Amino acid sequence: MEKRIFNFSAGPCTLPEEVMLEAQEDFYSYKGQGLSVMEMSHRSKTYDEIITSAEKDIRTLLNISDEYEVLFLQGGATLQFSMVPLNLMPPANKADYIVTGAWAKKSVVEAKRVGEVNIAATSADTNFNYIPKEYNLTPDASYVHYTSNNTIFGTEFKSEPEVGNVPLVCDASSNILCRPIDVNKYGLIYAGAQKNMGPAGCALVVVKKSLLERSPEDLHTYMNYNIHAKNASMYNTPATYTIYIMGLVYKWLLKNGGLKAMEEVNEAKAKLLYDAIDNSGGYYKGASAVEDRSLMNVTFNLPSEELEKKFIAEAGAKDFSGLKGHRSVGGVRASIYNAFPTKGVEALVEFMSTFKTNN
Amino acid sequence: MEKRIFNFSAGPCTLPEEVMLEAQEDFYSYKGQGLSVMEMSHRSKTYDEIITSAEKDIRTLLNISDEYEVLFLQGGATLQFSMVPLNLMPPANKADYIVTGAWAKKSVVEAKRVGEVNIAATSADTNFNYIPKEYNLTPDASYVHYTSNNTIFGTEFKSEPEVGNVPLVCDASSNILCRPIDVNKYGLIYAGAQKNMGPAGCALVVVKKSLLERSPEDLHTYMNYNIHAKNASMYNTPATYTIYIMGLVYKWLLKNGGLKAMEEVNEAKAKLLYDAIDNSGGYYKGASAVEDRSLMNVTFNLPSEELEKKFIAEAGAKDFSGLKGHRSVGGVRASIYNAFPTKGVEALVEFMSTFKTNN
Repeated sequence: MEKRIFNFSAGPCTLPEEVMLEAQEDFYSYKGQGLSVMEMSHRSKTYDEIITSAEKDIRTLLNISDEYEVLFLQGGATLQFSMVPLNLMPPANKADYIVTGAWAKKSVVEAKRVGEVNIAATSADTNFNYIPKEYNLTPDASYVHYTSNNTIFGTEFKSEPEVGNVPLVCDASSNILCRPIDVNKYGLIYAGAQKNMGPAGCALVVVKKSLLERSPEDLHTYMNYNIHAKNASMYNTPATYTIYIMGLVYKWLLKNGGLKAMEEVNEAKAKLLYDAIDNSGGYYKGASAVEDRSLMNVTFNLPSEELEKKFIAEAGAKDFSGLKGHRSVGGVRASIYNAFPTKGVEALVEFMSTFKTNN
Repeated sequence: MEKRIFNFSAGPCTLPEEVMLEAQEDFYSYKGQGLSVMEMSHRSKTYDEIITSAEKDIRTLLNISDEYEVLFLQGGATLQFSMVPLNLMPPANKADYIVTGAWAKKSVVEAKRVGEVNIAATSADTNFNYIPKEYNLTPDASYVHYTSNNTIFGTEFKSEPEVGNVPLVCDASSNILCRPIDVNKYGLIYAGAQKNMGPAGCALVVVKKSLLERSPEDLHTYMNYNIHAKNASMYNTPATYTIYIMGLVYKWLLKNGGLKAMEEVNEAKAKLLYDAIDNSGGYYKGASAVEDRSLMNVTFNLPSEELEKKFIAEAGAKDFSGLKGHRSVGGVRASIYNAFPTKGVEALVEFMSTFKTNN
């Protein structure tokens, strides 16, 4: 077996070892067919089975009803920041945004190009280290947008904000599939693939069919959900190989007990780390409000920036990579997505203890 | 060595065997670093080397000067159909389009959403089986757009249309890198990766820096060339693995003599097939005008649709895949991109001869 490091990157990030080994095995000649998945026509029978099965499996995992379309689009969450308001803001042309971090702020920038944006709540006052619990909602808004997990700050919503009958739109890029959710509470969920689902280059969009009639006909074609839906994500050539890996990840999740089992593992992994922080006598300090701590991105500080630098450097020498906090906040960040192994968290906890003793 | 079929698909399509073997070898642990390229942070040192080297190599291959930016964007050529007019049509808001096929028609649809489109020439009168040689150009157009190769119809421009001082914009998706070109003749070149460059999920954009000031500030961020250029294609997470494979393909081209050598090979491969068609006594009939025949997509017909069906089925049984013509035109299409091996073309020529004798 080849060497494998503990990759704490915030995304792109570690993918399930089994998935990587299977994809490598099938890379040059998929199931002995004599060509790679990335060389196949997206209209071929084999590729059709791959994308159809990816859709079927994500429907099973999230228990998505027939009232929803599942789309695989390019451009990541960033293009969704624009596609959401372009498609869903009309005709009222106003929407509520809950702003809990850098990505939410970016989504607001694009929404303002389309219509009126009401900031229903924000935690900008303390640099986004908590999740607001009260919202100033607009009753006739076209939708309410929120970001379920904040990769940079290490906070997450423990449940969906209550928004009444207004469609709820969620950027779930960094915690989709980390636990079961009730999709029926949402109008639309989108997520870049590169954290819990696969390589960069694809966004999953789950959208209520009844909302598709909002898409204006004069939208640029690639920006139009309705056109992508009518063409089953095949209006143009999709990111075929990326979707193939996403499908393998979905199969891996199903095989390992689905999202309920994943939630248990994720809670156990996060507890190991947060306990190490909380039991360090203040040497390690969690960066976010305790009740809003993310299961996916564990952010913390050391007594000084100098020690943080040393911590990250020494961890790197031990093949713990990607621990540096986002350049906008500093500190340490351990991203422990679904595919990140428990033994890696245990190893980090041990390292933290040793580092504290020595420093 | 595992089995490898002859894959005549129009795209996604066959990639260089050497590239596929190297990528498979490095799939699970890139150069022994303990993680896959698809698991690396796009901000990591290793990935920075990968994308920087891909850009450097495409600059060498196409001899791209410092007056041009090189971008790797998601959304394929389809998103470029919109981004080109959104960024380059202002302030005059009119552009000339040369319409030589289905993709050019689609690019016109998006351009019309932005401004006035003048169809400078079209070969729609004979279902796009030739390339018009005369153009009705608008002197104050923002740009002239053309499609250098028409995948569906099997025609291509043998040289750039003469457009004077108006910036020339080219959709080169299906023949980029098939021969040397003079980039200085262009304002912008774009190409989906999935024919001559790599997997689906990325478009290469080469754009003259002086044109970037046209990008309106109120454009949606992902649609703005200027923002992508300022961020060296890293405004958001790019399609990291796709770009890695593109880089390997560029290295393979450089190692094999660059585009001049590729042109010789491509001309020899195409000649083998066109000669087989022309010397068949009319049994095989080329679908496009002789002087406009594509080096990449060789389209032809048999005496009847029934024989075409039989031809494709028998070829399929011999592991020649992807020979069916596009659903909109029928017939046979052999796509023989850069990576398609000469021995595959020879095998098809032999099969054509046997099939003719037997039928």
